[in-house]
Amino acid sequence: MKTFNFTFLLFFTVLLAACGDKSSSGNVSAEPQQTYEWKLVTSWPKNFPGLGKAPETFAKYVERMSNGRLKIKVFGDGQMVPGFEVFDTVSSGAAEIGHSGSYYWKGKAPAAQIFTAIPFGMNATEFNGWLHYGGGLEMWRELYAPFNLIPFAGGNTGVQTAGWFKKEINSVKDLKGLKMRIPGLGAEVLKKVGGIPIALTGGELFTSLQSGAIDATEWVGPYNDLSFGLHKAAKYYYYSGWHEPGASLEFIVNKSAFEALPDDLQAIIEVATRAVNQDMWDEYTAANNDAMRALVDTHGVDMRPLPDDVMAALRVASAEVMQEQSAADPTFAKIYASYNAFQQGVSKYHQISEMEYYKNREGKE
Amino acid sequence: MKTFNFTFLLFFTVLLAACGDKSSSGNVSAEPQQTYEWKLVTSWPKNFPGLGKAPETFAKYVERMSNGRLKIKVFGDGQMVPGFEVFDTVSSGAAEIGHSGSYYWKGKAPAAQIFTAIPFGMNATEFNGWLHYGGGLEMWRELYAPFNLIPFAGGNTGVQTAGWFKKEINSVKDLKGLKMRIPGLGAEVLKKVGGIPIALTGGELFTSLQSGAIDATEWVGPYNDLSFGLHKAAKYYYYSGWHEPGASLEFIVNKSAFEALPDDLQAIIEVATRAVNQDMWDEYTAANNDAMRALVDTHGVDMRPLPDDVMAALRVASAEVMQEQSAADPTFAKIYASYNAFQQGVSKYHQISEMEYYKNREGKE
Repeated sequence: MKTFNFTFLLFFTVLLAACGDKSSSGNVSAEPQQTYEWKLVTSWPKNFPGLGKAPETFAKYVERMSNGRLKIKVFGDGQMVPGFEVFDTVSSGAAEIGHSGSYYWKGKAPAAQIFTAIPFGMNATEFNGWLHYGGGLEMWRELYAPFNLIPFAGGNTGVQTAGWFKKEINSVKDLKGLKMRIPGLGAEVLKKVGGIPIALTGGELFTSLQSGAIDATEWVGPYNDLSFGLHKAAKYYYYSGWHEPGASLEFIVNKSAFEALPDDLQAIIEVATRAVNQDMWDEYTAANNDAMRALVDTHGVDMRPLPDDVMAALRVASAEVMQEQSAADPTFAKIYASYNAFQQGVSKYHQISEMEYYKNREGKE
Repeated sequence: MKTFNFTFLLFFTVLLAACGDKSSSGNVSAEPQQTYEWKLVTSWPKNFPGLGKAPETFAKYVERMSNGRLKIKVFGDGQMVPGFEVFDTVSSGAAEIGHSGSYYWKGKAPAAQIFTAIPFGMNATEFNGWLHYGGGLEMWRELYAPFNLIPFAGGNTGVQTAGWFKKEINSVKDLKGLKMRIPGLGAEVLKKVGGIPIALTGGELFTSLQSGAIDATEWVGPYNDLSFGLHKAAKYYYYSGWHEPGASLEFIVNKSAFEALPDDLQAIIEVATRAVNQDMWDEYTAANNDAMRALVDTHGVDMRPLPDDVMAALRVASAEVMQEQSAADPTFAKIYASYNAFQQGVSKYHQISEMEYYKNREGKE
């Protein structure tokens, strides 16, 4: 029996050496690694240009970086749940992650609107600066914590346009009684200057404009507007933007699901969201450029600024809306105070850097 | 012996089951995984604000995401090699990765300059759009392939300032004979309008300005300029920028080292560079904002635009420099043609979107 035991122990040792911890010899632990399958619900049609591409890119990044240990299945609007149920679905854990726009959740937390866009607020560059180096992200996480959600920035569209108008806007009077599809804080501002904001989903815009059910609509910008064919619904006036100067999207992750992941997969999610946050914006920059050329050169669209007095009235109304929102909700007030303090500084700096550069590059003094 | 063999085989089977492939039960292969230790050489002092923070952030991202399988040790300028030897060091494989600025390598490939910044060229938003969705990155990879290098965008400073001048610049005449520290294509432009570009490293700026060895210097922007104390060297005029409207940094990876990595670690490097590319820019946005306030409020610095006729002369000279560079090198010509075509479109779009928005936000018509 002594020979038996010795032989056995020898094999036991050899086998353990063959499958155990190799860190001392340039390898890391080969403990069996758990795999995860996550559901990602979105508020966009599957693979919708820009908005819908971001969650697909994210899922690919995560699957490759995790060597297949975290697989993410992406569901378009309505495939698992309707787009407006993304927040609740991820909050409950029925899906582990979602991609959407925070301003849809103003009924849950009014301050959520701040993390998409504010009329006459910060553009993409500025918002990302505030979010990641100005305390914004911490406040957003605090806001979503009671819902068991962790938010991450999830892409940016750049400056959105003011939208498509069936009649030329020559003065503030032309906004009185104007039936316009416009959501969020922009809708509140339009109301203040006499307009009538209408709530419509993207899919309803074309026919509503064509039928005359609405007089005007905003959507995103040249890239998405062109793909919806908004320029074909009638002869329109296309105006440059004021109400969503850099609309930021969001990834929301169920906190319990996130905390159940090992540290490397948590890091993979964090870094992938940062990468997608820029990737979407890069795509919009290039695609808006192409789409604007097509709108101008092929379809004869002429994008123009709104008259100065209209902009002035919208600016005043926007300031009032932000005061009212702050007065109505202390959390809104606290987060907006941080946002606004950052904006006051960075907007001055961008006047003399970015804006001055835009002016000088073209030689328009 | 039958009993012995049976017992042995049983243990053998149990042991293999305990350490083998678990993919069928929600786990992935536990094959021993190789670890890698990479050296990252940079052109910046270790932990230099902004520029030097990016490679540290990158190394942390990669180590966490790879669960320690890819460890990256970051070397500051001169710690392993001098900053200007980053390209050769990574090309040879003596270090696997580097973080630097592509315009330092114009002696290797003149077109490398295009991937940092071009006078009156694209800003950070536009450059990133061209790079990732306009064909830029593919051209950059082709340019660096003969050197066994793969480039990735590695951060952006935003619009750099024109710099610090000891005398007020009132007309083009004031640039004649002006001894100014300015590198790259900006130096060529200054020469054309009668100035004398001087090559100095960052560490020499303060004393050179103070001693009068130079009349003016550019560096980066408020964040880095303030930390160098440039405002203290003398009474200066600080002008807004034209020559580096969004300076992009680079990660360069040794191609052989990259290809020796498994696919998940390759993906981790790719996605981490994208995340750092935005992270640095976010940091600059916030830090330039803070630094500008300090310069204005505490140090009485007044940043102003250069006079219109000076800007006009610099614009004309810049166009000539780009023509000369294109004429001298067919690769430069090909890449700049792509860059310029993208700029022509996107700059028109940004006039009516970003620039119009900056104007309307402040109510300066």
